[in-house]
Amino acid sequence: MVLGHESSGTIVKVGSSVTTLSVGDRVALEPGIPCRHCAFCKAGTYNLCVDMKFAATPPCDGSLAKYYVLPSDFCVKLPSNVSSEEGALVEPLSVGVHVCKLADVRPGESVVVFGAGPIGLLCAAVARAFGATTVVVVDIVQSRLDFAKGYAATGVFNGGYSRDPKENAGKIKEEFRLGFGADKAIDASGAPPCIQAAIHTLRHGGTFVQVGMGPAEIVFPIVEVAAKEVTVKGSFRYAAGDYKLAVGLIASGKVEVQSLVTGRWAFKDAEKAFEETLGGKGIKVLIKGPE
Amino acid sequence: MVLGHESSGTIVKVGSSVTTLSVGDRVALEPGIPCRHCAFCKAGTYNLCVDMKFAATPPCDGSLAKYYVLPSDFCVKLPSNVSSEEGALVEPLSVGVHVCKLADVRPGESVVVFGAGPIGLLCAAVARAFGATTVVVVDIVQSRLDFAKGYAATGVFNGGYSRDPKENAGKIKEEFRLGFGADKAIDASGAPPCIQAAIHTLRHGGTFVQVGMGPAEIVFPIVEVAAKEVTVKGSFRYAAGDYKLAVGLIASGKVEVQSLVTGRWAFKDAEKAFEETLGGKGIKVLIKGPE
Amino acid sequence: MVLGHESSGTIVKVGSSVTTLSVGDRVALEPGIPCRHCAFCKAGTYNLCVDMKFAATPPCDGSLAKYYVLPSDFCVKLPSNVSSEEGALVEPLSVGVHVCKLADVRPGESVVVFGAGPIGLLCAAVARAFGATTVVVVDIVQSRLDFAKGYAATGVFNGGYSRDPKENAGKIKEEFRLGFGADKAIDASGAPPCIQAAIHTLRHGGTFVQVGMGPAEIVFPIVEVAAKEVTVKGSFRYAAGDYKLAVGLIASGKVEVQSLVTGRWAFKDAEKAFEETLGGKGIKVLIKGPE
Amino acid sequence: MVLGHESSGTIVKVGSSVTTLSVGDRVALEPGIPCRHCAFCKAGTYNLCVDMKFAATPPCDGSLAKYYVLPSDFCVKLPSNVSSEEGALVEPLSVGVHVCKLADVRPGESVVVFGAGPIGLLCAAVARAFGATTVVVVDIVQSRLDFAKGYAATGVFNGGYSRDPKENAGKIKEEFRLGFGADKAIDASGAPPCIQAAIHTLRHGGTFVQVGMGPAEIVFPIVEVAAKEVTVKGSFRYAAGDYKLAVGLIASGKVEVQSLVTGRWAFKDAEKAFEETLGGKGIKVLIKGPE
Repeated sequence: MVLGHESSGTIVKVGSSVTTLSVGDRVALEPGIPCRHCAFCKAGTYNLCVDMKFAATPPCDGSLAKYYVLPSDFCVKLPSNVSSEEGALVEPLSVGVHVCKLADVRPGESVVVFGAGPIGLLCAAVARAFGATTVVVVDIVQSRLDFAKGYAATGVFNGGYSRDPKENAGKIKEEFRLGFGADKAIDASGAPPCIQAAIHTLRHGGTFVQVGMGPAEIVFPIVEVAAKEVTVKGSFRYAAGDYKLAVGLIASGKVEVQSLVTGRWAFKDAEKAFEETLGGKGIKVLIKGPE
Repeated sequence: MVLGHESSGTIVKVGSSVTTLSVGDRVALEPGIPCRHCAFCKAGTYNLCVDMKFAATPPCDGSLAKYYVLPSDFCVKLPSNVSSEEGALVEPLSVGVHVCKLADVRPGESVVVFGAGPIGLLCAAVARAFGATTVVVVDIVQSRLDFAKGYAATGVFNGGYSRDPKENAGKIKEEFRLGFGADKAIDASGAPPCIQAAIHTLRHGGTFVQVGMGPAEIVFPIVEVAAKEVTVKGSFRYAAGDYKLAVGLIASGKVEVQSLVTGRWAFKDAEKAFEETLGGKGIKVLIKGPE
Repeated sequence: MVLGHESSGTIVKVGSSVTTLSVGDRVALEPGIPCRHCAFCKAGTYNLCVDMKFAATPPCDGSLAKYYVLPSDFCVKLPSNVSSEEGALVEPLSVGVHVCKLADVRPGESVVVFGAGPIGLLCAAVARAFGATTVVVVDIVQSRLDFAKGYAATGVFNGGYSRDPKENAGKIKEEFRLGFGADKAIDASGAPPCIQAAIHTLRHGGTFVQVGMGPAEIVFPIVEVAAKEVTVKGSFRYAAGDYKLAVGLIASGKVEVQSLVTGRWAFKDAEKAFEETLGGKGIKVLIKGPE
Repeated sequence: MVLGHESSGTIVKVGSSVTTLSVGDRVALEPGIPCRHCAFCKAGTYNLCVDMKFAATPPCDGSLAKYYVLPSDFCVKLPSNVSSEEGALVEPLSVGVHVCKLADVRPGESVVVFGAGPIGLLCAAVARAFGATTVVVVDIVQSRLDFAKGYAATGVFNGGYSRDPKENAGKIKEEFRLGFGADKAIDASGAPPCIQAAIHTLRHGGTFVQVGMGPAEIVFPIVEVAAKEVTVKGSFRYAAGDYKLAVGLIASGKVEVQSLVTGRWAFKDAEKAFEETLGGKGIKVLIKGPE
């Protein structure tokens, strides 16, 4: 099976009825093609489509290839000030856009993001772009926090502070002057202690979004959720308008993604890109398509 | 401390600036007086007020008394076709109203309610009143399910079917033809297997509301929440308009509460009312105020 | 051009990939086929599709024919307790469903509907089904009001009361005890005095929905809209889920449509059906398809 | 009667139960004190309070005075990087915040603002702060447009282009590449041709907010509203959280208000400030309180 679902490309051929794209256009490739007919698709939530064809998800091949066929409405044109490298990062950025829409991040709000991997960093960057004035990134790897601080976080917190999620939450609220708690919390780690701390970090009526995938079942502070009337939302991929907004955030300079690219490999050395990522080196590694 | 927070009464005296109530009016008593000044109060979520005075919650006395003082805007007038007995049930009914508002129950939807105690039953009744066409009540006590069936449920399910919450969820979806799953699920039990089954019973994009209070922390299927983009909300008491709507639902005949009253005691025998409830006999026991 | 866009039918042939319908199924026919690709379609608002093919709207033929081809997801199956005659009324009922969704009609609310034609009547019926406890229908033809009263209205008002929309609004608020005003108002007439009265009938923060089409431009009380923070929404056709809910409302007995059928004609006499309608006789006239 | 409702001040005395403010704190003064008891207040819409006491609105005196008494929760503390002059501009800025919340301005959206007076300019500035990437300001006075361009607008349009609102709308859509139309339009002028052009400028499903007050009744394109499913909202003052967010926008540098101050007068020369404003000179004129 062909891998790859985070890609940009250049149009080499268009169908006869396509009016929005021309040969030579550079585009970000949205990797999931929904059925367009089910109740989820028609209600504006095509990411929940029950008959989705998603790149690199069996039985569908992915986009790490010389040529790739995609309906024109899933090709999002890159303006001249957005590079094709940046275009390849639109996919994870769209995850961050979708998360921040679900979290309904608003100007002036405080957001705590757990997990400083690519998705956590991009959630933080989008939260800033959505107007959040306090964006705290939490992780246990100091080098990741150092990067986060220079990237999008207004503050960082090392979860090594305590083994008790409640204590970490208390310290976060105190250190970043969150008053009754954060308006929004996002978990991009999947780690149970992060999710627990996230719930305890929220104010009454706050919202938590789960985007990271870890253990299927975790210990969860349900009474805290009930007593504070917290809203918990799962986030899955991206839907209507997310890709377009992600491109717009890059184009308008509201989100910078270039600095997340820590490696580049030729197509023939693609295997090394995977090794580099597996080795935990760097953040995002790009593979250039075959000539 | 004086107990009691589910009460109705008759106005015997009004302040000089009160224009909406007169001596002799029968009213339902909303038991929590918020500060009216904090950000939560001013944003329309006074149930989250950080300086709430709530009846029978230390240090505040409750309403099981001959006389009780309450601001006029927390006294909701009972129309002539709503009895004072029904008025005493407005408090738990308002919990159900608040839950169904949070769950955003809509006409034509399917709702599964876990727990057939008074709150679960009233959630089911409100869900019906809000237009849900399928309302399944789940419990493990068959006599409660029998009552639920005659009360508000369109179907009932005995959770004794399986020890595996997923299996129970699968069976519920199959038996009540819920297709991809229920639109909404409500837990009024606090029991971990109910909460787990509730999440598995939902369709993609469904909403779960937690109103029951059980163990502070439970094992929770977080990946299911993420992958299905489920929304989980905690529900705490009731807020703006809930009491008034609860009275309206009784007055318009959309919700019937009289049949939940399974016992009545004179004030001097109040202790026996508590014994009866503790003994698990009946659903709601009323204590008549002292003459 | 073939006319007709309010139709039901029986499946005589299905495409090879259709799994949800079988020959012999009776269905309501949703008459607009959106492009499924534009931003409006993908965002869940396919009624706003910029490339819609709508029955009986040039250049598309309508459904007043022996055979009609429709994608399976726009055929909504009628359960056994919904007749094919009722199925033909699902189209205007879906307009009412869409209006009441836009108006966000909630249990316990008051709704004033201007215009007692088929759409106004169905808006009133859906408002009741959505839980509105006060539904006032306004018209200037007393016979229509008499029908409305026996159909879905909890009260009716003859707009002949005054030539001044403000006076009519004041009288409506007084007569139906609407306090600060109605929660929601709907205009299904298109007549300027109705729209003006509707705005004046609303409470602060109320919502008005325009569904009737009259003069393109009217005199409109914009300062009243601003000072009361009224929301005004246009309603256009129906979108995701509306048809299905409309069928469900009939099936569950929440809305009755049969009594709106005041005439029936054979296909060969179709012309007479149009004459009858033009003559202002009756409410809805059905034409039976050719054998 | 004392005038004034756009003010900042310094705390000289606090009540015995006030914990959030101290003598010497600099604060922005929110000028309307709601009743805190009516349904509108309790629902989070205190700007719609039916028993509001508003500064400089009979019978209430305004804040253009040496001393002014205000409940502590309507005094919003100015951080050290927000000057008292800027604090006096929090009132009109809060109007802009409220408008943009009602318009639900989102990152990446296009917003057209009609009227380049102080409120229009501040709406434009807040729209930018909320993430709008295209903010077009429309007026007929070129000098105002020149200011707008240097202040917050990404583009400006002189309404003198045509006497036909539709033509102006068409030209705006073309010139600023708005495709199907603007996502949001705001009228801060009250002028009928602006309101008409605003509706025609919107895309299907777009939102229009009316904040300016002009003639009570205007000619209004209601069929355009219906056919495009436009939402029209009135905006009245500001409510929960608006003042606090306005201060936050200044403090975080997201909105700059200092350059709107075009005149400053001593208290004894207050009359001249009014003359200057009446003469149409400048944008905002400040009066320094008496020593």
